This record gives sequence, structure tokens and C-alpha cells, in this order.
Amino acid sequence: MADMVAGNFFGPQNNTYIRVSLPAVCFVWQIAMVILFGVFIRYDEESDEKGWHEFKRSHNITSNIENDFYFRYPSFQDVHVMIFVGFGFLMTFLKRYSFGGVGFNFLIAAFGLQWALLMQGWFHSLDPVTGKITIGIESLINADFCCAGSLIAYGALLGKVSPVQLMIVTLFGVTLFAVEEYIILDLLHCRDAGGSMVIHTFGGYYGLAISWVLYRPNLNLSKRLNGSVYHSDLFAMIGALFLWMFWPSFNSAITNHGAGQHRTVINTYLSLAACVLTTFAISSMGQKKGKLDMVHIQNASLAAGVAMGTSAEFMITPYGSIIVGFCCGIISTFGYLYVTPFLEKRLKLQDTCGIHNLHAVPGMLGGFVGAIVAAAATEEVYGKEGLVETFGLSGKFENRSMSTQGAYQAAGTCVAIAFGLVGGVCVGFILRFPLWGDPADDFCFDDEAYWELPEDEETIPPVLEYNNHMINKHQDTHESQFSLEES
Amino acid sequence: MADMVAGNFFGPQNNTYIRVSLPAVCFVWQIAMVILFGVFIRYDEESDEKGWHEFKRSHNITSNIENDFYFRYPSFQDVHVMIFVGFGFLMTFLKRYSFGGVGFNFLIAAFGLQWALLMQGWFHSLDPVTGKITIGIESLINADFCCAGSLIAYGALLGKVSPVQLMIVTLFGVTLFAVEEYIILDLLHCRDAGGSMVIHTFGGYYGLAISWVLYRPNLNLSKRLNGSVYHSDLFAMIGALFLWMFWPSFNSAITNHGAGQHRTVINTYLSLAACVLTTFAISSMGQKKGKLDMVHIQNASLAAGVAMGTSAEFMITPYGSIIVGFCCGIISTFGYLYVTPFLEKRLKLQDTCGIHNLHAVPGMLGGFVGAIVAAAATEEVYGKEGLVETFGLSGKFENRSMSTQGAYQAAGTCVAIAFGLVGGVCVGFILRFPLWGDPADDFCFDDEAYWELPEDEETIPPVLEYNNHMINKHQDTHESQFSLEES
Amino acid sequence: MADMVAGNFFGPQNNTYIRVSLPAVCFVWQIAMVILFGVFIRYDEESDEKGWHEFKRSHNITSNIENDFYFRYPSFQDVHVMIFVGFGFLMTFLKRYSFGGVGFNFLIAAFGLQWALLMQGWFHSLDPVTGKITIGIESLINADFCCAGSLIAYGALLGKVSPVQLMIVTLFGVTLFAVEEYIILDLLHCRDAGGSMVIHTFGGYYGLAISWVLYRPNLNLSKRLNGSVYHSDLFAMIGALFLWMFWPSFNSAITNHGAGQHRTVINTYLSLAACVLTTFAISSMGQKKGKLDMVHIQNASLAAGVAMGTSAEFMITPYGSIIVGFCCGIISTFGYLYVTPFLEKRLKLQDTCGIHNLHAVPGMLGGFVGAIVAAAATEEVYGKEGLVETFGLSGKFENRSMSTQGAYQAAGTCVAIAFGLVGGVCVGFILRFPLWGDPADDFCFDDEAYWELPEDEETIPPVLEYNNHMINKHQDTHESQFSLEES
Repeated sequence: MADMVAGNFFGPQNNTYIRVSLPAVCFVWQIAMVILFGVFIRYDEESDEKGWHEFKRSHNITSNIENDFYFRYPSFQDVHVMIFVGFGFLMTFLKRYSFGGVGFNFLIAAFGLQWALLMQGWFHSLDPVTGKITIGIESLINADFCCAGSLIAYGALLGKVSPVQLMIVTLFGVTLFAVEEYIILDLLHCRDAGGSMVIHTFGGYYGLAISWVLYRPNLNLSKRLNGSVYHSDLFAMIGALFLWMFWPSFNSAITNHGAGQHRTVINTYLSLAACVLTTFAISSMGQKKGKLDMVHIQNASLAAGVAMGTSAEFMITPYGSIIVGFCCGIISTFGYLYVTPFLEKRLKLQDTCGIHNLHAVPGMLGGFVGAIVAAAATEEVYGKEGLVETFGLSGKFENRSMSTQGAYQAAGTCVAIAFGLVGGVCVGFILRFPLWGDPADDFCFDDEAYWELPEDEETIPPVLEYNNHMINKHQDTHESQFSLEES
Repeated sequence: MADMVAGNFFGPQNNTYIRVSLPAVCFVWQIAMVILFGVFIRYDEESDEKGWHEFKRSHNITSNIENDFYFRYPSFQDVHVMIFVGFGFLMTFLKRYSFGGVGFNFLIAAFGLQWALLMQGWFHSLDPVTGKITIGIESLINADFCCAGSLIAYGALLGKVSPVQLMIVTLFGVTLFAVEEYIILDLLHCRDAGGSMVIHTFGGYYGLAISWVLYRPNLNLSKRLNGSVYHSDLFAMIGALFLWMFWPSFNSAITNHGAGQHRTVINTYLSLAACVLTTFAISSMGQKKGKLDMVHIQNASLAAGVAMGTSAEFMITPYGSIIVGFCCGIISTFGYLYVTPFLEKRLKLQDTCGIHNLHAVPGMLGGFVGAIVAAAATEEVYGKEGLVETFGLSGKFENRSMSTQGAYQAAGTCVAIAFGLVGGVCVGFILRFPLWGDPADDFCFDDEAYWELPEDEETIPPVLEYNNHMINKHQDTHESQFSLEES
Repeated sequence: MADMVAGNFFGPQNNTYIRVSLPAVCFVWQIAMVILFGVFIRYDEESDEKGWHEFKRSHNITSNIENDFYFRYPSFQDVHVMIFVGFGFLMTFLKRYSFGGVGFNFLIAAFGLQWALLMQGWFHSLDPVTGKITIGIESLINADFCCAGSLIAYGALLGKVSPVQLMIVTLFGVTLFAVEEYIILDLLHCRDAGGSMVIHTFGGYYGLAISWVLYRPNLNLSKRLNGSVYHSDLFAMIGALFLWMFWPSFNSAITNHGAGQHRTVINTYLSLAACVLTTFAISSMGQKKGKLDMVHIQNASLAAGVAMGTSAEFMITPYGSIIVGFCCGIISTFGYLYVTPFLEKRLKLQDTCGIHNLHAVPGMLGGFVGAIVAAAATEEVYGKEGLVETFGLSGKFENRSMSTQGAYQAAGTCVAIAFGLVGGVCVGFILRFPLWGDPADDFCFDDEAYWELPEDEETIPPVLEYNNHMINKHQDTHESQFSLEES
């Protein structure tokens, strides 16, 4: 009887069989990476043994400490932690999808960064003479950033898609990212060191659009698993804190050497601190009994980092940063309290992690804040050379006025939204082909679908009871491998 | 019947209602921060765009790598991790107060660091001409340090106070810290880079004094929750290890560039390693069956970092560092075994995390060790310029002898103790006003008071049982939102 | 009755009594460290206050940023995290040996690094005139590396040995390490910055040989505990990810300043990313239902870091790195699927963590890959001075050809294997003396043996039930300390 019921219920599980598709995708794409890297990717002049010696001679550099590596490596490692532990553990909050949260995050980031090195290389650093892309530490940071876009999208899809689908989300996500980044940073010549526009706005709307196309009307069949337990919330807190702590590194990782990196860290640090207080305040106010909600603490307190992505490198002033953080904590927590439920009910948009409130909206805000701060920049505040350096106003952009720059920054934000929405809808339709192994509606948010799970925690028998058990011959089927003769 | 009992028992819970007070405090203080930052805080010359260009010219600096940012940023990030993940997760060890441990730590550190930038700024770097405080990376490190004092105090109060009380502890803690720091470092001209005196001694006695005033004679009503479970001890181990690993960064973060930072790291590293061995030894000896106690491993192994806070930057020698670590492991573990129970029984001092053994005593010891090592310093060992640089003996302190310096260091330790005790008693009495929402004696150590908790782990039903359940119509009230029609 | 059975079963537990032996070993060895450090260890010229001022003058250095500290400190801290959190948490995967995994890792690493500073100092940096060893940041990194060898060996022994035995494993492990390292790096003049040979190959075979000698034919008596639970796998994932993310720092920590460190990071980063994809692919293919196995994800995805230890600093090219990672993911996952079970059945080799697949084989492969890449090095690619610097071909090695260098690299790998196997067998026999307190066959993988354990998670009673309980006077013996009169 039980089996029959199981049969009925586990029936739809069959379509989560990925033994062919996942290895096939991994192998084909990884082999493609080997070939493409062989054809295109080389060390740049600061990581090439011969090149660096020549670079030092030609630039009259006497000390190895001038290598870009020493300016950027500490930030790179922090960003790397954010991508793998930060995003990964933030997504372990579901009671039975923690393996999928951290595990698939690992898989798609590892693939995405390779593809990002190629895509970003083709658009930004392809040498027209040799036909090669040269990479250094800054390329690795940018590759990690590029993955972040797809990982954000994963946040909306968490628990509802198969790893094969995620590989497709990432393949297209990275591709679209490289194109919109090229348009925003190169053609429009916007500044966006921490990626409010190119990473968070794009990634957020990309994920939301996919999720909208993949709407599951019967998702409440999996409702019992769409929530946290006490310890899964603590695991998620690890991710949240590493994101929060290292966000100053995220925003400053590729800003200008010297005062640029220094100021970006200060601004992001202050903004995030302010955001925590308003998040706690609204979280408590939003609930009848005044109790705090871990979902808000884990997520909304990060919104300030997102919103400072563009403007943190500008002279936004310390109190300006705090004001941005102040507002973001309020807006993002309100989003979790009221907007996410509204989106799900009215717009048929299921957003597991609430990326709408953590990435899409704060990212968009960050883009517009950046536009305003850029438009308000003056030579008096930045100094002449400071203004040129901070906004890169040399070459053909030499004569661009600051208000024009502000307008372009705002336009860049719109480009990011457009790319996210249109790209996401297209990718969403690709994912609807019925061959990617996604789980049935009653099998979502369940690691059982793709992971070998250990037996349940409750079944660890204390040695005493266990052995009494054995003596009484009440052997549980689970433990049948343990035979009495051995004891 | 059950409800009636619940009514009786949950009665006192009402006073943990913080829906008005917590948001009010957060908003008022955060708005105050915006205004005060607007009036007072500016970028310093190494983070200001214009300022840095001028600084480079005036100081004849050719490379951006000379910006203080590159000397201090890796240490800053490590300190930041210690404050938020280290302190935060160390306090997750209680079975049902992990949310409060890591969550309130997050809240008060985020508030404290903003207030610290102002308080420390007014005392240390207020420009008398412009009336502005300028901040850079070193200010951020100092702000994190300043928070640490209040977070240590939280360790003694863990589980027994409301978040509103913690905000008050932090407001006064940071204020007192800035004053005692000004007296110790500026007026007495002590050296204390890692804060044995100013951070740990002060923070430890501050927390103990508050806890003494807030003594709860009926705290054993909450005894069932004042302990760990297997996995909460592992979460605490994450905090403990990040503190242990990054303590070399903590002590070296604001020491002198070059050999100063380098030596501080070596000394702290060695001292901590030695401390681990004696902690394990005493932990095993202290128990009849010779078994190890996780509380000791998590806490006492860190005591050496505390005790090296003052002297790690001096020429204490590698074996001197190991001797300090050796002693600290013994003293601190003994404290956990015998002193904490004694304090609770005889002195009516309830110290949840045992900060007496981890911060107060090792900090005080560290202050006196620093005094001795300073008094023993000679020009032969340090070199003439080394002595001046290490102890800052220039200007009006040019003629201070080393034995005088030692005496001042000892006096500084006493100042820290006095500030902690007196300040703590005063703050304790403020916290006794019956309007801060602290939990009743039988409701301590329970996240239920301030957090929306997810359902229990045990209640995750395997899909099969769950559905059988549904068919048999034995619907649990918990799961009533899931209706049969949907399946 | 229950007690009688308990008596029978807990009987063998007695021999895990370590109340005398563990403290004795800790104290004796730590006191020996104090004395030996007093006699031998001093600060080097970059961490000594006087020395650094003289060094700057004599080397005409104007800025403190040239101190080796600033080149290596960020990598050092990453390596430190790998040793304590990485290795420590990777070994928490067992359901009831997580305390032992992370706790004993902490103990032996803290001891090992002190002993390593002495052993490596005697072999590498003993000043023949003064008779002193001078230490700096690079010595600390090397000491951490040296510990890694013994921690790897612990992976094979996890759950089956006592902490006293582990101290012995570490004492001899570090000693053997220093000798083989001297032979490989100094006498054979191999390059092995990331330790494919000296750390991983040696550590892997050392652990396997010990485990082989300590074979337990009745280990399946503890079978019920030799596995994970859901949350212990997540804790292990923390360790795995920190190892994975920081491996670029591990391999680059002691490579040449400038392009050397820069390139090592790029190569390791790429190789690890490729390894993740093939690990996922084979893990899914290796199981009938195509489900992924956490053991593979946690371990095999790291194999590329091991295998790049030697060659990452060479000009292996980006696609070369990816190819190495590609192969390692396949080989290592196959090892977990087929080789470990084979070794256990046929060779009587019980390898708890599968270090054969993660360290021994990938390390050996890495040694040979390094030999090939070294043999293929040309002046055209490296430049003349680059070749000399990368391979250290100055002094008496000036005329060594690259093919000779390759042959020596291969020979070095064989030396590492030989030292591991022979040393491991000898140490294994020492560990078989019946006085070290190791657990009986039916008491392995159980923290109960050496740790005071908190009550089980399931026994946290909700306050309501708990109090009903009290009223009904059905008092559990566990909770008898809580008396009704108090409520």
C-alpha cells in the first residue's frame, strides 16, 4: 500500500534523471573550454615570466610590488569567497535544498568563470594583431563578477530547476552579461566598478524574467519544503555575513589604484552598516508581535552593498553613503514583507530567494544614484586630474560634461534592465523544452531529486539503544547491513 | 488545558514585545548618525580624490602602493571577519539562542562602528581648524576594535537581555571606550596596538559589571536551554577558528608599517599555537573521565591572542610569546573549570560565555606583560630609531625612560579595569528600568522571544509519510494550508 | 538489563582514557618547544626592529612596503584558513565525529607548526655562525605547509585513532617532512612551491601506510557511524569550499615575487574550475540513478589544486592548467567510486576520507606533470632571466639543462613516495603499542570516546511540553536538576 502510494507520488520523479544530460553538458562544454583557451587565452604582461621582466624595463619599474597582483589580490580572494561561500551558503536556507543551493552554485560558478574569461576577453581585451586574449588578476575578478549575474538569477529559480537548466542559464547569462557590459562600459562609457547596473540589475531582472516564464501554478504541492529549519538558517547566515563583510572588497576590487580603492571601501562599509539598522527596524515593525525575521536579516541587510556598486568609487561623501544604506534597508525589507507575496499572487512570479528585493530594485536604485552623483561631480571636489581619472574622461570622452555623464549612467541602467528582461524571457522559453530534467511540482525544493542523501539525522541511534535493538531483533530495514554475527 | 498552562508560562513573554522600542531606537540613532556624519566626517587625504593627488605631490610619492590602504586592507578585512563571523558565531553555541547570538552581534556591531567613528574621531582626529574628522582605513579598523569592547560585554549577557538593552550597552560602551582609550593612549601615552587593555580588559570588566547588576536569582528556570547541542557547538567552532586564525591580523592591524606588523604577526601566531596545547591538556585533566570539553577548546585557546595584544609589537622574542601562550591556556581553562562556577555561586555573577576567563583576566595579564616587556626594552635590542618608533617616544615624550614607560603601561591597565567596572555598574542600573523588553527568568536563552522561528527540524516529513498522512486525513494543524484538492 | 548490556558494550571504551597521556604529551612537548625556541629561534632581518632599519639602509630600500610581509601576508592568512578551517571542517562530515575532526585537527596543527619551525629551520636556515634560526612570514607559511602533510595523513586515520596517537603521527610526520623536503628541494634542487610532491604525495602515502599497518578487520562494528548526516555534509562543505577558494593562495604563497605569484594564481584558479565540471559529470555517471554524491563534490573537486602544486608556477599555459584539472576531476572521482572500496577489500587499507584519491594520486601526478613542464621549458618562453629565476638555476646549478631538471623533478616525486611509505609503516608499528588510548573496533567514529557531548538535539523540549511534563511529574532523569519548587 505504502509502495503504491509512493509509486504514484514518485512517478514524476523519473524526469529528474540527469545521468546522461548532466555529464554530457559538462564534458562537451569543458572540452570546448580547453580548445578555446588553447586558441585564445594567454598570460598578460604582468603574469608572463618574460613579459613582466620586459614590462619592468620598459616602464622603469624597480620593484615587484608594483605588479597589479599586489593591488588586487586581497580583494580578489574576498570576491572569490563571496561567489562560492557567500552566494552558495546564502542559498542553503531551505530545509531540504541546502545541497542543491551550495552545490549547484559551485558547479555553475566554476563553469561560468571560464566562459566569462572568454566572452569578456573577446569584447574587452582581444589583441587585434595576435588574435589573443591576455589575462591577469583583474580578468579573474571580472570573471567572478560575470558569474555573479547568473548566480543572482539562480536565486529566483532555487529549488525549481535542474542542474542542466542552470548550466544553460549560465551559458546565456554570461554571454548576455558580456554584451550588455560592453554596451554600458565601453559604448556608453559608464562607470560601474561594483556592478550595480551590469551585475545586479541585469542579474536580478534576468532571473525574474526566467522565473516568470517558468511559472508553476501548482508549486504549493511542494510547500512543505519551501521554508527553513533552525540550522539551515544558520548556514544561510554564514553566506550572508561573508557577503556583507566582503562587499567593500567587491565594490573596490577593480576601482582605480590608491584613493579610488580606499574611498570605495569606506563608502561601502558605512552604507552597509546603516542598512543593518533600518533592516532590523522594519523587520520588527512588519510583524504583529514585533519579532525579527531571519529572511530579512540575511538578505535586506545586503541591499546597501548592491546599491553602492556604482557610486561607491565617487565622492559620494560618508553621510551620502549612510543615507543610501538607510533607504535600502527600508526598501528591501518592505519588498520582502509585501512585494514578493504580491508578485507571486498577482504577477505569477515565483522568486525563491527574493532577488527582486536584494538585487533588482537596489541595483536599479544604485544605477540612478550613481547617475546623480556623477552628474553632481565637480572639479572643485575631485581636482582636475581626479575627475579625469575617476570617470575615465580621456581620449574621445575628454569633452564629455558631467551632466552628460550622468545621463549616460542613467541610460546604462535602462540597458541593463532591458537586457535582463528580454534575455530572461528568451532563456525561459528555451528552458521550457521538456528534456532538461526539472522536477515535478510536488518534488521541488527537494535534494532527493539530484543528490544521494544520507539517512536522516533522527536515525542516529545511541550505541546503547542501538545494541538493545539488535538483541531484541527489532531490526530496522535501514540497518540491516549490520549483522549480529559480527558483534 | 495545554493552553491554560501555556498561558501561565507564556505570560511573562509579553514583556519581550519590542515592536515599538527596537525600531524607535534604530531609527532615532541612525538618523542621528546621518546628521552627525554630515556635520563632522570627511575623507582623509589618502582616500579623498583630490587630497591623494596633492598628498603624493607634497610627499614626493610616485606609486599608489604607498597609500596606507595597501598596508592595512588585508588586516582590516580579517578584523572585520573576526567582529562579525568570529564573535557572532562564537556566540551561537547555545541550543536555542543561535539566532540571537549571531543576529544581535550583527546589529550592535553595525551600530557601534558608526558611533565609534564619531567618538574616536572627536577624541583623536578632530581638526581644530575645520572642525572635521577625517577618516581612512585605519579609522575603520579602530571603529571595529571599538565595537569589540561592547561585543565582549555581550558575551556575559548573552540570552538574558533584549536587543534594545544591547543597543544601550553599545552606545555607552563605545562612548566609555573612546574616553578610556584617549586617557590610556594619548594622556598616559601607552602602546596597545592589539588592545589587551583598551579592548579586552575594558570590555571584559564592563560586561561583568553589567551582568553583576542584572543578576537573576531564578535563572535556573531557563536552565534547560542554557547549553549546547552537537551542531550548535560546531557553529561556535566556526567563530572560534576564525578568531584564532585571524588574531595575528587583529594585533598587527594598526602597528607600525614594516617590521612592526611583521613581528606582531609572528608573536601572536606562536603564542596562540602554544595556548592550544595547554588548553587541551587542562581540559582533559579537569574531567574525571579525561574527556575534552568543547567550551574550553572554543574559548581558552583564544586567550593567548588577548594576552599578546599589548606586547606582540614589542621585541618579546619568539620564546617569550610561547611562554605567554603556555600560561594563558592553563589560566583560562582553569577559569572555565573553577572560576566561572565560583563567580556564579559566590559573587552572584552570571557570565554566559565566560568572558572573565577569555577577556578580562587574559587582557589584564596582557597589560602587565606589556608593561614588563616595555620596561625591559633597550636601545641595544631595538636600535635607537627602533625604540623611538616602537614606543612613539618623540615630541614631549622624548625623554621618557623605558622603566617610566613600563609604569605608565601598568597604570593604563588599571585605568581600563576602573572604566570597565564603574561604567558597567552605571550602565547596569540604567538597564534595570523595566521598559527595555528583557525576557523573564524562564524565557532566557530562547530565540522564541525575539525571532520568528521556523518549525522544528523533526517535523520535516518525508514525502511518502506526508502524503499517506494526507490520504488518511490526519491533518496536522501545522500543515493545514496544504489542501487535498491540489494533489 | 540495559546497564548490563551497556557494560558489555562500553567495556572496551575504557582504553580510550587519555586523562594522563594526553596532558603529559602536551605539556612535555610544549615545554620542549619553549626551551628549543629559546635556544634557537630569533626574528629575521625583516621582522627584527633593529634589523629592518639596517636592512633598509644596506639594501637602499626607501619604503616599508618592500618588506616581504606585504608580498606574502594575504596568502599566509589564506593558507592559515585552509589548514584550520579547510582541513578541519572537511573532516566534520561524519555524523558523530565532527568534534574529533575539527578539534584534533586544531590540536595537531597547533603543535605541528611549532615543531615545523624548528625542523625546517635546522635544515634550511640555521646560521652556522650564530647557531640561530631566523624566522619571518615565509617561515610561518612553510610551517603551515609542513603541518598539512600530517593533517592529510589524519584524513586516512579519522575516527580510528586517539589524539595521543595523532600527536605521534605529527611529531614523526613533521620530522620526516623536513628531511624529505631537504632532499627534494635542496639536494635534488627541485621546484615545488605548492607541494605536490613534498606535501601531498608524502602526506598521502604516509597516511595510507599508517592506516595499512593499523588495519582493523572488525571495523564494520562501527559501520553505523561511518557516514554522514545532512547537516554534517554541509559543515564539510564549508571546509571544502575554503580549501577550493584559497588553493590559488596555497600554491602561490612562496613562489617568486611579481609574475611568479601572479601566474601561479591564474593557473590554479583555472585548473580548479575545470576540475569541478568533470567531478560533477563522473559523480552523476557513477550512480545508477544519476544522482550526485557529496563525497565527490567535497573532495574530488579539490584534486586539481593538489596536482597543480608543482607546475602552477611554471609557464604551463592557461589551457594546460585546464587540461590538468579536467583529468584530475575524472581520476579522483573514479578513485572514490572504485579504488577506495577496492583498497579496503583487497589491500586491507581503510582510508576514511579517501586521501588516496585526493592527495596521494593527484600529488604524484602533479609531481610528474611538473617534471614534464620543467623539461619542456625554454628560454624563448621564459626569457633568460626568467628561466634562471623560475627554476633557481644559479650558483652550482647554473649549468643544469632543463631536461635534467625534469628528471630531477621526477626523482623528487619518487623520493616523496618512498619517504611516505617507509616512514608511514614505521610510525604505524609504533602506534600499535597498546598504550595510546585508541578506541575499540565498535567504538570508532564516535566523539563519545574523547569528548564531553551535549545531550541530543531531539531532546530539546519546547517550553510548553516541557512544563506539562513537569506538572505530570514524569520527570526525565536528564532534567532532574530542574525542580518544581522553582517555578
